[in-house]
Amino acid sequence: MARPRMRAIPLGGIGEVGKNMMVVEYRGDMVMIDSGTKFPEEEMRGIDLIIPDITYVIENIQRFRAILITHGHEDHIGSLPYVLPQLERIAPIPIYGSPLALAFARSRLDEARNAHLADFMPIEPGITYNIGQHMEVEFIPVTHSIPGSMAVAVKTPVGRMIHTGDFKFDPTPPLGPRTDEERLKELGDEGVLALFSDTVRIERKEATPSESTVSATLDRIIGGAQGRVILTSFASNILRLEQAIQVGARHGRKVGVVGRSMEQSVKVAIDLGYIQPPPGVMLPTDEVIKLPKDQILILTTGSQGEASAALARMASGDHPLLRIQEGDTVILSATPVPGNEETVAQTIDNLFKRGANVCYSAIEPSIHVSGHGGADELKQMIELVRPTFCIPIHGEHRHLHLYRQMAIDAGIPPENTLIPESGVPVSFSRSDMRKEPAVAYGAVLVDGLGTDRYRNVVLRHRDQLANTQVVIATVIVDLERGVLIAGPELTGKGFDDEDSRDLIEAAERELKNYLERQLRKGGMSYGYLVSRVKDVVARYIFQKAKLRPMILPVVTEL
Amino acid sequence: MARPRMRAIPLGGIGEVGKNMMVVEYRGDMVMIDSGTKFPEEEMRGIDLIIPDITYVIENIQRFRAILITHGHEDHIGSLPYVLPQLERIAPIPIYGSPLALAFARSRLDEARNAHLADFMPIEPGITYNIGQHMEVEFIPVTHSIPGSMAVAVKTPVGRMIHTGDFKFDPTPPLGPRTDEERLKELGDEGVLALFSDTVRIERKEATPSESTVSATLDRIIGGAQGRVILTSFASNILRLEQAIQVGARHGRKVGVVGRSMEQSVKVAIDLGYIQPPPGVMLPTDEVIKLPKDQILILTTGSQGEASAALARMASGDHPLLRIQEGDTVILSATPVPGNEETVAQTIDNLFKRGANVCYSAIEPSIHVSGHGGADELKQMIELVRPTFCIPIHGEHRHLHLYRQMAIDAGIPPENTLIPESGVPVSFSRSDMRKEPAVAYGAVLVDGLGTDRYRNVVLRHRDQLANTQVVIATVIVDLERGVLIAGPELTGKGFDDEDSRDLIEAAERELKNYLERQLRKGGMSYGYLVSRVKDVVARYIFQKAKLRPMILPVVTEL
Repeated sequence: MARPRMRAIPLGGIGEVGKNMMVVEYRGDMVMIDSGTKFPEEEMRGIDLIIPDITYVIENIQRFRAILITHGHEDHIGSLPYVLPQLERIAPIPIYGSPLALAFARSRLDEARNAHLADFMPIEPGITYNIGQHMEVEFIPVTHSIPGSMAVAVKTPVGRMIHTGDFKFDPTPPLGPRTDEERLKELGDEGVLALFSDTVRIERKEATPSESTVSATLDRIIGGAQGRVILTSFASNILRLEQAIQVGARHGRKVGVVGRSMEQSVKVAIDLGYIQPPPGVMLPTDEVIKLPKDQILILTTGSQGEASAALARMASGDHPLLRIQEGDTVILSATPVPGNEETVAQTIDNLFKRGANVCYSAIEPSIHVSGHGGADELKQMIELVRPTFCIPIHGEHRHLHLYRQMAIDAGIPPENTLIPESGVPVSFSRSDMRKEPAVAYGAVLVDGLGTDRYRNVVLRHRDQLANTQVVIATVIVDLERGVLIAGPELTGKGFDDEDSRDLIEAAERELKNYLERQLRKGGMSYGYLVSRVKDVVARYIFQKAKLRPMILPVVTEL
Repeated sequence: MARPRMRAIPLGGIGEVGKNMMVVEYRGDMVMIDSGTKFPEEEMRGIDLIIPDITYVIENIQRFRAILITHGHEDHIGSLPYVLPQLERIAPIPIYGSPLALAFARSRLDEARNAHLADFMPIEPGITYNIGQHMEVEFIPVTHSIPGSMAVAVKTPVGRMIHTGDFKFDPTPPLGPRTDEERLKELGDEGVLALFSDTVRIERKEATPSESTVSATLDRIIGGAQGRVILTSFASNILRLEQAIQVGARHGRKVGVVGRSMEQSVKVAIDLGYIQPPPGVMLPTDEVIKLPKDQILILTTGSQGEASAALARMASGDHPLLRIQEGDTVILSATPVPGNEETVAQTIDNLFKRGANVCYSAIEPSIHVSGHGGADELKQMIELVRPTFCIPIHGEHRHLHLYRQMAIDAGIPPENTLIPESGVPVSFSRSDMRKEPAVAYGAVLVDGLGTDRYRNVVLRHRDQLANTQVVIATVIVDLERGVLIAGPELTGKGFDDEDSRDLIEAAERELKNYLERQLRKGGMSYGYLVSRVKDVVARYIFQKAKLRPMILPVVTEL
C-alpha cells in the first residue's frame, strides 16, 4: 500500500493563490491556515466581499482539527465570521494564533455574534502544539506591518512544512520581536520538507526598509506642522499608529481616533499593551477638536480613498465632526492597493482643493514602508530553512513565476519548485512532490446589507448564480451638475409573476425619489452613489417581500 | 477706455487643465494651442473619446487665426479630426507645428478624410511667424518622448507668453536637438510675461533620466535573449522604437511591426528620416516570423494592456500571426498610465502563463523613462525664462498645487501664480493677472462605431445628454466558465413607440445569439466583451433603423 502523503491545498477561487486560506492534511488530520477575505474587483458590481469556498473542508469535517492564524489582517482572518457557522457541527473550533491576531479575530466574531463557535488558543512562540493524532504545530515570530505575525510550521510523519505568512526581515521593528532567524535556522538544521512563501514584493530586489524609518519622517512632518494634523493609515497597522501617537505626544498634541475600524483596532492594541500612549494623550475626538490647532492629531480611516470612509468625507466637507480647512496637514501613511490608485488620487486632489498641506507617498516616499520582504529577503528565508521543496504563494501569477525563478537561482532544483493553483492539492512524500486532481474550490460572494454587515448577509456560491434572483439597477448621472440623465431602470431576473413585477416597479419609484433628492443636495461621490443605489433597492425589497435578490447597481457617470 | 488684455483659456472639461487645448487671444486675434483627446474613465461606459467643447471658438470664429501644435501625441493632436469640421467655414485652417507633429496630424486627418480642411505650416525653430494682426509666434525645441516637440511663445503688445508643451531637459536625446536652453534664456532676457508650464511629474524631485539610458537596458535584454523578442511601447514613442530597431539590428535581428497605430507611426518616422533602420532590417512581419527565433524582433502595440491590441491577443493565443510561446522574451517598454495598472498586470500574468520571459518596469526600472521633467527641471524652466506670472497646466489638481508651491519657493510672488480652471480665462495686462468669468467649455463625448472610427461618429455634448436616445445593454457573465448568467437585457430611453420597442427587442435577440456563440468558444477578455456588446447593438440598430443612440454596455463579471 502506498505510504500516506502530506497535502497542502490553497483554497479561494480568485486572485492570489493561497493567500486567504490553505488546508494542510495528513491521514486523519486536517488544519486550516488563515481564513481571510478578498475585496471584489470593480467589474463585480454589488458584491461586498469574496471568501473561499470551503466545500472540501465540510466534506471532510470529521478530520478537521483547527484553524491556525498567521496574523490579524482582514485578508487572513476576515472570513472567520462566515466560515465558522459552516463548521458549527464541530464547534467550538480551536483557533490558534498570537494574542493580537486572536484579539482581531474575536472582534470580528463578536460583531457577527458567533464568537461562541471559536475556542481561542493564544500561542507562544517556541512551544509545540500537538494537533490531532499526527501534527505538531509551531509558530515562529516574523516581522510584518502588524505585530504578532507568525510563520507556521506543521510537522507530520512525512516531514515539516513551513508557511511563512506575510513577512519581512525588519532589523528594528518598533514593537515586538524581530523575525526569529535563529529558530528558522534550527528548523532548517532539523530538516524542512516544504516551504510555502510570501512572494508579493518579489519585483523589488532590495530589502524593504524597517518600519522604524517612518518615525523620523512623521517626526519631521508633525513637528513642522503649524495647524491640525490628520493622519490616515490602514486601521490594522498598529505599528504605524503607535509611532504616530508617540510622535504626536512628543510634539504636545492630543490624539483622537475617527472611523469605526480604526477605533476598534486602537482599542484592541491598547488593551493588549501594544500601543502605550503617554497618560492623557488619547482623548475623545470631540474634545480633541476643541483644542488649539497645533495640539490636535487625528488618526482616521480612508487611506485607500474609500468613498464612505472618514477621510474622503472630511475632504468633501461631509463629515459631521471635522472638515478639512486651509492650514491642515494631512498625512497619507499608506500606498494605494492595486486598483485603488484613482480613488486615492481623487481624495488627494480634494484635500489640496480645500487648502490642506498633503503628504503622500509619491512626494514623501518614506511616509510608508511595505510589510513584505523584497527578493533578497525571500531568498534569505530559503537560505535559512533550506527546504527540499519550495512553493510560492500569496501573489499574482507573475509573482509566483518570478519567485520560482529566484528559487532555482538560489539552488532549488527546478523539479522541486512549482507554481500552485487554487484548489489543486500539492502532495508530498519524504522525497517527492506532485500536484493532484483539484478538489472542490472557488469563490463565495458575500452580499450584505450596509448597516449590519454580518447579520443580514447572503452567501452566494459562484456556480449557483444562474439560479439566483437578480435585480439590475441602471442609472446614468452627471454628478458635477447633480442631474439624473437616465433611469433609474430596474430589471429583475427570476421575478416572473405579476406581484414581483409590481415590487420591482415600486422599488424603482423609491430609488428614483431617493436619487432626485440626493442629487439636488450635491456632494455625492461616484463610489458613495453606487453603494447607496444598492442599499436603497435591497432594503426596500427586503422590507416589502422578505426577498434577498442580488442587487447589481450599474451607475454610469457622464 | 481699458487697455486690451491678453487672455489664455484652457478648454476641455474633464481632467488635466489645459492639457488637450488652450486658446490665446488678444483683440481681434485668437489662436488655439493643441487640439487633443482624452480617454474616458471606466465609469463612462460606451464612450470612445472625450474632446474639448469648442463652442467659444465657434462663437468667435471671425477672430480665429490658427492652430499651434506642440507635439504629435494623441492628447495634443487627437481631436483635430473632430475640431476642424466644426471650423469648416473658415477652412483651410493653418496648423503650425514641427514636421513630425504635422505628419502625425495629417495621418489622423487623412484617416478621417478631412485633411483638406487643414493648411499645414511646418515650422522652423528660431523663426518668428506673424499671425493675425497682433501675434508673433515662435517655436522653441524641447525634449520629450517624441521628437519634434516644441514650446510655443506667443507675443502680443501686452507681452509674451510661453506654453512649454510637454518637456524635460534631456541632456542626450537619441534623436533631435536638446531643449534650447539658450533661446529660452534669451527670451527671458527680452522679457516673458507669463509661463504656462507642464507639471505632471512634479511629484518627483530629481531630473528624469535621459531617453538614451534605455538603450543600454535594451541592449542587455535583447542581446541576452535566446528566442524571439517582442517589444511593446507607445506607438508614438519614435525615440524608443528607433533605439529598439538599432539594438535589434546590432544583434542580428530583423524587425517586423504589428498593430495599426505602430505601423503608421513607424512609417511616418522612416519617411521623415527620424528612424533610419540599416538596410534590410525592416521586413514584413510574415517574413520575419519565418526566420530562426534568435533573428526575430517584433514591435507591437498593447503596452497599456488594451484588450483589443496585438500584445494582449498574442498573450491570450488569439492573434492570427503570432502567439507567445515558451522562450519568447517580451519587453514592456512603458509604464501603465494611471487607470491601466490592472489591465497591464493581467497582460503580464498571461504572458508569464504562456512561458514568456517578461521584462517590465517593476522589475527592470530602466526599461522606460518618462518624457516629463521632474520638479528640478520645472524649476530650471522658471529660472531660464524668469516670467512675471507663472501658471501650472497639464496636471491633476495636486500637480498644479505642488507646482504653484514650488514656483513660490523659486521666487515667484504668490499673487503672480494661480491655479487655472477649465473654461476660465486668465487675462493679463503688462502688470497684472486675473481670472475672468468662465466662457462656454466642457467635454464632448465621441461615440464611434468600431470599424471606422472617424466616419461613423457621433459627437454628444455633455449638457445635451438628457435628450439623447440611450440603449443600456446589461449582461452578467462568468468568463472563466464561459457562461451567460443573466441577460442580455436591453433598456431603451427615448424609444417610446411600438416599433422602437420591437427594434430594441430584436437587438436583444441578436446580442443574445452572438454572446452565446462567443462565450462557448471561450478566450474572451472582459474588455473585449464590453467592446463587442457595444458594437453588436450599435451596428444592428443602425442597420435596421438608421438610428445612432448612445449604447452603454454594462457587463458584470462574476
